[in-house]
Amino acid sequence: MGNDYYYECPHPVAIPPAKPFIESVKSGIKETLFPDDPFRQFKNQPASRKFILGLQYFVPVLEWAPRYTFEFFKADLLAGITIASLAVPQGISYASLANLPPIIGLYSSFVPPLVYAMLGSSKDLAVGTVAVASLLISSMLGKEVHPNENPKLYVQLAFTATFFAGVFQAALGFLRLGFIVDFLSQAAIVGFMGGAATVVCLQQLKGILGLVRFTHETDLVSVMRSVFSQAHQWRWESGVLGCCFLFFLILTRYASKRKPGFFWISAMAPLTSVIVGSVLVYLTHAEQNGVQVIGHLKKGLNPPSVSELAFGSPYLMTAIKTGIITGVIEGVAVGRSFAMFKNYHIDGNKEMIAFGMMNIAGSCTSCYLTTGCRTAVSNIVMATAVMITLLFLTPLFHYTPLVVLSSIIISAMLGLIDYEAAISLWKVDKCDFIVCMSAYIGVVFCSVEIGLVIAVAISLLRMLMSVARPRTFLLGNIPNSMIYRSIDQYPIANTVPGVLILQIDAPVYFANANYLRERISRWINEEEEKVKSTGGSSLQYVILDLSAVGSIDTSGISMLEEVKKNIDRRDLKLVLANPRSEVIKKLEKSNFMESIGQEWIYLTVGEAVAGCNFMLHRSKSNNPATDKDELDAHDNV
Amino acid sequence: MGNDYYYECPHPVAIPPAKPFIESVKSGIKETLFPDDPFRQFKNQPASRKFILGLQYFVPVLEWAPRYTFEFFKADLLAGITIASLAVPQGISYASLANLPPIIGLYSSFVPPLVYAMLGSSKDLAVGTVAVASLLISSMLGKEVHPNENPKLYVQLAFTATFFAGVFQAALGFLRLGFIVDFLSQAAIVGFMGGAATVVCLQQLKGILGLVRFTHETDLVSVMRSVFSQAHQWRWESGVLGCCFLFFLILTRYASKRKPGFFWISAMAPLTSVIVGSVLVYLTHAEQNGVQVIGHLKKGLNPPSVSELAFGSPYLMTAIKTGIITGVIEGVAVGRSFAMFKNYHIDGNKEMIAFGMMNIAGSCTSCYLTTGCRTAVSNIVMATAVMITLLFLTPLFHYTPLVVLSSIIISAMLGLIDYEAAISLWKVDKCDFIVCMSAYIGVVFCSVEIGLVIAVAISLLRMLMSVARPRTFLLGNIPNSMIYRSIDQYPIANTVPGVLILQIDAPVYFANANYLRERISRWINEEEEKVKSTGGSSLQYVILDLSAVGSIDTSGISMLEEVKKNIDRRDLKLVLANPRSEVIKKLEKSNFMESIGQEWIYLTVGEAVAGCNFMLHRSKSNNPATDKDELDAHDNV
Repeated sequence: MGNDYYYECPHPVAIPPAKPFIESVKSGIKETLFPDDPFRQFKNQPASRKFILGLQYFVPVLEWAPRYTFEFFKADLLAGITIASLAVPQGISYASLANLPPIIGLYSSFVPPLVYAMLGSSKDLAVGTVAVASLLISSMLGKEVHPNENPKLYVQLAFTATFFAGVFQAALGFLRLGFIVDFLSQAAIVGFMGGAATVVCLQQLKGILGLVRFTHETDLVSVMRSVFSQAHQWRWESGVLGCCFLFFLILTRYASKRKPGFFWISAMAPLTSVIVGSVLVYLTHAEQNGVQVIGHLKKGLNPPSVSELAFGSPYLMTAIKTGIITGVIEGVAVGRSFAMFKNYHIDGNKEMIAFGMMNIAGSCTSCYLTTGCRTAVSNIVMATAVMITLLFLTPLFHYTPLVVLSSIIISAMLGLIDYEAAISLWKVDKCDFIVCMSAYIGVVFCSVEIGLVIAVAISLLRMLMSVARPRTFLLGNIPNSMIYRSIDQYPIANTVPGVLILQIDAPVYFANANYLRERISRWINEEEEKVKSTGGSSLQYVILDLSAVGSIDTSGISMLEEVKKNIDRRDLKLVLANPRSEVIKKLEKSNFMESIGQEWIYLTVGEAVAGCNFMLHRSKSNNPATDKDELDAHDNV
Repeated sequence: MGNDYYYECPHPVAIPPAKPFIESVKSGIKETLFPDDPFRQFKNQPASRKFILGLQYFVPVLEWAPRYTFEFFKADLLAGITIASLAVPQGISYASLANLPPIIGLYSSFVPPLVYAMLGSSKDLAVGTVAVASLLISSMLGKEVHPNENPKLYVQLAFTATFFAGVFQAALGFLRLGFIVDFLSQAAIVGFMGGAATVVCLQQLKGILGLVRFTHETDLVSVMRSVFSQAHQWRWESGVLGCCFLFFLILTRYASKRKPGFFWISAMAPLTSVIVGSVLVYLTHAEQNGVQVIGHLKKGLNPPSVSELAFGSPYLMTAIKTGIITGVIEGVAVGRSFAMFKNYHIDGNKEMIAFGMMNIAGSCTSCYLTTGCRTAVSNIVMATAVMITLLFLTPLFHYTPLVVLSSIIISAMLGLIDYEAAISLWKVDKCDFIVCMSAYIGVVFCSVEIGLVIAVAISLLRMLMSVARPRTFLLGNIPNSMIYRSIDQYPIANTVPGVLILQIDAPVYFANANYLRERISRWINEEEEKVKSTGGSSLQYVILDLSAVGSIDTSGISMLEEVKKNIDRRDLKLVLANPRSEVIKKLEKSNFMESIGQEWIYLTVGEAVAGCNFMLHRSKSNNPATDKDELDAHDNV
């Protein structure tokens, strides 16, 4: 035992074997960009099998086509027709929301679903984003180009924005950067979507009240001013019709929510409304009494629009900006729908590529954005149904009243206002609730873009703040155990006399190193003052529990060095407990471990306290043998 | 025990008592903005004492003045004269670096130190930032206004920038937002400072080589092109003189580094160089042989410059931008010097206010930025010395050769290139080294502003990336203990058959919730495949060790809910170990605790494994009594 007699550490802290630099870079890249291990199925396969799997990977249609049966087809046929009956009126409605000709909404329900059927692999995708994207298009492009004064340029810019949304999404997917959409927190999305839905509903007041002129602003104040300044022009026919249809749509939605088997009721309701509305108008000639109708829609499939992409336009930057923002919003919807439908075997980045391709193809075929889709074949069915509509049925929409479209949009939007989620945010996490409400208020009272910026900024700020201000806890011993836990959480835990045990609750980075240095110093001050005022045994050891410090950077190492110097200056001893592999590696490389002494680094707080107690008693009695007994006695308490 | 017989949890997880909302907001604000508890000394004091302490808090001179003795004064006198002998030549040099008239450098060493002596409380401040700030002024303002073509406007803008730097700093301090400078990581600062010092040195080639024309760009390529395109105009007299002085200065710096007692040698060296250089030029009339000299400096103290503040100028935005950036750089220097000199009793935000006031006062008295200072009285001594210089000695600088100033700057800058820190970064943390080198390269090859932006962006990005991609570890049992640790770090640890123990290594936020969901699912997949291929006992339990999850947001809670659903679908059971107070509170409020069952939340991984093992054995034998024995046997292993 000799001169340097220490409490023998029962479980030494291991320093993990050093990895070669290249290997750690490789594993870092893998964890960062390929966390879902998308190529796992290729491992340990012969070359021919790899080729087939590869083809199936890039063109999923090859995967499911051989296994496709007639049973599947029957289900898909029904689903496809149901979606089509939803897609046709919604397509027309959303196009009018984007201030685009209604026919473009129909075009957009034809080509893109076909592209997605070939490339995509998700079975369920969120419906409703299209409304928000349409709103973004009308609000961002509408600022630069007036859709009524220069309709041709406006449509061109919408195609161009769609093109860039596609390019952006495909690029994110190819570079496997799809995770950047994760930086929008769920609370922010709830607020943003709710706000956007509210704004969309407010815009529908134009249709419901049968107004001809309307503001181009989207904020609540402007819309209300516009609505009430024209109070004398409200058309009661339009209003009554709108309220009836809205009531009908909400009722069917509520009914199918109560009985999930009746999904088709709410899916067919919009088409039913359109038909009933059109027939009503046709019979009563209401279009001559202030009820606005769609008017002429030309027959025929999507005309090509490659030549319409306005790359040379002075508004190119606006189109790019609009494209990127709508691309992100769609990306968020993709990510969110995966989370919602718990489909764990989907590669988000691949979906991003599929979405990107869909939008690029769409922008070249007179489409602006895409509607939701279910399975590949049901997509094809739906596209076929839309094709038939485009070829033969467009004249039937001539008498469709705009007020029905407004009702359809409102009823769809009401589902996006997730007030239940907001209430649960308030209950669980006030901070997230504030994020949510800020995004909502930003969208409703300022503009969609400002709301989005607020949502992203406040989410990031909140995250940075919690990184910058990690919590530190005083630990105490849980009676009858060797376990040490925060005294705040476990009031039964007892502090150890002469030993201050602190726990750092987050990784240590440059952003919190200064704070932690000050905070630890304050803990020690407070403890010393407490000891002075109560007259307990004086402070001898400071144990830092690093269990929750998953990583550390060089600023953090410097912080520890300074803390150690500060503790040494007060004639105390710094002891570390449970440094993780990242931390211990860096402590070793930076020579901090040498300066603190490896014997002062323990595997658990319990062992660290035992070691400290042993040293405390040894320095009092200077008799190792009895100490050992005392120590054991303590251990067994 | 009844039907629902569970392993009795020896140490239940406590849910901390709920704090009222207001109280948690209050403590949040305190931890965020007042982590150093600046008003601690005011607690439990009578009102009169509070008033005196308050006065002393805002005007520290009241605190130290009564205790000031003649002994202190002797030390301060020496220190003050030493700093003055450093400040006078450096002031002139830095002003020339900022393309300002040399006299402004002298003015800046007079008023601001006096202001700081009244308001500031730091004893040591980093010298050298002024050079970087000067460079920033010349590069940012010089882009808009040419200092030779429109010298009056240029000087006005420099004052205005100084004013806004002061306002910005004071505002940060008042709002207690000084911590935002923490978001520049130490690695980024090392790189940025080194780069700026390199750029400053490169600029001195003009003075050393006696060139008359010189580029206004600061990047390496432009400077080298400018230097070598004028190779025929290099003046050897100037070069030789410069190299001699540089050698002398570096030698004295080296000597005083070796023997810290000789600090005054390196402090006096610049003034000695100036005197020797001036005498040499005066005697040899070298100013007529291509050695440029300062020329006429006007006598007299600082003229007021309030009326020079160019608030109405079209370049106001440039001045504001320059002011904010130099303000941040100075703020970083303040924060860094506290860290360097380990002065724990200084309130960084108060120092920011003092700095801000100093710059505001300076901008009104023809000063542009400030030099370092030591103690309050030594500042006064120094200011007096500078005052005497301004009143009587300025003509003596007429013959001071510019090349000496360049040598002084270079020798000061070489100390800022902290190559040792860069080497240690490489050794300890490759990632931090990359941050450092990016900032360095950005400054040297692009520009100071770009370097700064790169440094901030890359630091933040790195932090966001580590938040977005926390590590997860597989835990195993350390033999002969109840301790569970990562198998990566402790290869001796043994996995438990039928139980997968995972540890999440960082707080769970929206930014990493998606990743963690995918990663945990991949861990389970891999474990199930391993069991399948090796034929061990099938997986039954997944234990998530939340020890390192200091906080969680609502996205994180949803992630846990989805993980639970996924685990349930695989017929496994999710068990939680050691949730922290933040986490358990939110789990309770979100009803997740109900859905998982409180009996499946354990205080330690050891107890969780014991519980799982007990259930495993019970389901096999269906005899609680024997299980209990087996369980105990396992515990004692």
